[in-house]
Amino acid sequence: MYKNQANQKGFVLWFTGLSQAGKTSVGNRVHQILKEKGLKLERLDGDIVRQSLSKDLGFSKKDRDENIRRITMVARLLSKNNIGVICSFISPYRKIRDMARRETNNFIEVFCNAPLGICEKRDKKGLYQKARRGEILNFTGVSDPYESPQTPEIELRTDQESIEESTNKIIKYLEENSFI
Amino acid sequence: MYKNQANQKGFVLWFTGLSQAGKTSVGNRVHQILKEKGLKLERLDGDIVRQSLSKDLGFSKKDRDENIRRITMVARLLSKNNIGVICSFISPYRKIRDMARRETNNFIEVFCNAPLGICEKRDKKGLYQKARRGEILNFTGVSDPYESPQTPEIELRTDQESIEESTNKIIKYLEENSFI
Repeated sequence: MYKNQANQKGFVLWFTGLSQAGKTSVGNRVHQILKEKGLKLERLDGDIVRQSLSKDLGFSKKDRDENIRRITMVARLLSKNNIGVICSFISPYRKIRDMARRETNNFIEVFCNAPLGICEKRDKKGLYQKARRGEILNFTGVSDPYESPQTPEIELRTDQESIEESTNKIIKYLEENSFI
Repeated sequence: MYKNQANQKGFVLWFTGLSQAGKTSVGNRVHQILKEKGLKLERLDGDIVRQSLSKDLGFSKKDRDENIRRITMVARLLSKNNIGVICSFISPYRKIRDMARRETNNFIEVFCNAPLGICEKRDKKGLYQKARRGEILNFTGVSDPYESPQTPEIELRTDQESIEESTNKIIKYLEENSFI
């Protein structure tokens, strides 16, 4: 049984992890399933936000933090109005993720956990290669740190699970916690 | 008869006008009345946005336009999810206001029209004085242009009307157009 739109609680599914760890792939699939259930949803994704809300920002720690601050403001306004927000951002710094957690309603941290070597092998966009050659600076996992979540609500082992298996973990969590 | 929350349509009440023209005062009163009717609402206001979403931006035309672009993104996400958004921004440039109109659902331009001399006399914060002395640059009406709306949905003559009269004009518009 799923709640209908009128009863929907707001939440923020916050996907964090390295580039190519599966944040967007799993996020897209979850979005599709929840949309079919009639939930009100919004997606906030790295590439899109970087072209709109944060097009002035780079990838220094200061700029990354500012990017997450702006996104958090949007996610806060949406989640408190009972909308489900699906956020996919590398968001490598623990402190600013915890800020996003405090500022929004029902923050659900989804750690897309895959070893760097696996992410680097996937490297569809050739970004790791460029980072290794020094053509991209401040690249998470190569020249910038990634601070893993210590107690994420959900951990996906995207090197071992299929997209479908990862998606099911999230749907199960949302069901067990009465979000759907 | 007012619609309940479940039937609510999203809209954007966009207050534009000079500093001290009454944008925030009327916006606050409208917000209060609509809140009492049970509507889902969010306020986006110059001072607050300048301290959060746009704290890197100044008051050049380029920065003002970027500020409105970011606000529009937020207003778009909220209005398409059936939330009423009350925006109070000087927003002096016609072209970017028209962009906000195109990008959001049910954009209602509210022109807070009061002569510069009246706004300057009110000058509670002493901003016009500072602008006249050259201590603030790019100040709308003094050293920066204000492009009046040509066909606003609602025009308030805040030099001649009380806050209550201005507020009633807006409530009447919302009723006649089935937003409440």
